Amino acid sequence: MTARIYTIGILGGTGNLGNALAARWAKAGHRVILGSRDAAKARQRAEEMSTTLGTEIRFGSNQDTAEQAEIIVLAVPFANQTDAIEEVRPALAGKILLDTTVPLLPPKVMRVQMPAEGSAAQRAQLVAGENVRVVSAFHNVAAHKLASAHKLEGDVLVFGDDLEARKVVVELANATGLRGLHAGALANSVAAEALTSVLIFMNKHYAADGAGIRITGELDAGKLG
Amino acid sequence: MTARIYTIGILGGTGNLGNALAARWAKAGHRVILGSRDAAKARQRAEEMSTTLGTEIRFGSNQDTAEQAEIIVLAVPFANQTDAIEEVRPALAGKILLDTTVPLLPPKVMRVQMPAEGSAAQRAQLVAGENVRVVSAFHNVAAHKLASAHKLEGDVLVFGDDLEARKVVVELANATGLRGLHAGALANSVAAEALTSVLIFMNKHYAADGAGIRITGELDAGKLG
Repeated sequence: MTARIYTIGILGGTGNLGNALAARWAKAGHRVILGSRDAAKARQRAEEMSTTLGTEIRFGSNQDTAEQAEIIVLAVPFANQTDAIEEVRPALAGKILLDTTVPLLPPKVMRVQMPAEGSAAQRAQLVAGENVRVVSAFHNVAAHKLASAHKLEGDVLVFGDDLEARKVVVELANATGLRGLHAGALANSVAAEALTSVLIFMNKHYAADGAGIRITGELDAGKLG
Repeated sequence: MTARIYTIGILGGTGNLGNALAARWAKAGHRVILGSRDAAKARQRAEEMSTTLGTEIRFGSNQDTAEQAEIIVLAVPFANQTDAIEEVRPALAGKILLDTTVPLLPPKVMRVQMPAEGSAAQRAQLVAGENVRVVSAFHNVAAHKLASAHKLEGDVLVFGDDLEARKVVVELANATGLRGLHAGALANSVAAEALTSVLIFMNKHYAADGAGIRITGELDAGKLG
């Protein structure tokens, strides 16, 4: 089976997580567009990445990026989540919106504080509207580990009510070198989002560098993506 | 350092999780009391366990158990959590209440459904009162694995606002053969409670038997309990 190539637009594509995902997906052969509200920054980063990776990384405004992409990745800070979705909403209809935001509310980032909607993912669905295929993932991955050339360990829990959309994101998680796992309905996203505060706590308590999670137990290898 | 020996009373001590914890703690040298609303069942189980383990396992009503124990473990179904705490509340003052309940609401047990209080652990604190040292843990451990003689894999995330109480529970988690980890404030318990629904989903989706979690990253071994 040949893996499908997707056109992936990353809002917040010049941020740490967005940029690290962009590089890993580009290396895996996907077409990547870096979206940013700062056009000069997006251009500069895209040019640097194109040179380093030897493949063209495109860039654009958030709006252009969302229009041109099949899959739109939200990699902005939680505080900008709602604005970013609203800015591109007309371009999202029928597409996959991959939300990576985590409701960290400084200064208490080691304490779980979920939004009234239940989770960031559920809020994304409410703001985007019902015709958008919202999937959430990549909550528990340290951006600096994803950005490094090291072999990655850890699992990416993927949540979504649209099974086909979730499958695509499991594929994209696997394409980064991590292991993507189906983790159920979008309402379950609270598990991984809350875990981020726990991992930040553990990084401090155990002087760890980028704690993550791994699912144990004998998962049927034939069912893994 | 000699490990301290505790007197542990388990409400719901004849259930699958409570019973498995009792056996593992008794083997580790702790004094265990099985509490149950069904006196005959508690007696029978305690006698069986005493014979099998070669050490005395005591039993009693929930109330007697809570009065005699230093640490009270709540291993009842979520539906009985509030009643069980209320039944023994006078005996809890100043003690550690270890809540293991998970808000699974049949029939949708693969879907995260947190109570209005935020999590089962936060509800336990509200019902028990401020003078009870509530800690939560053992949300992500399959009872049948804990009950088996197999070597266990996986971590126990331990939540609580009282650091000394949390340390005791981390010790008790380590005493079962799993790895106990400090996971922050009681408010963080939602992460592990929500994860239980995710693991049930994965058991089904991946035909797994008792999926669990493991924290990855280089935790400082000197800081582990």
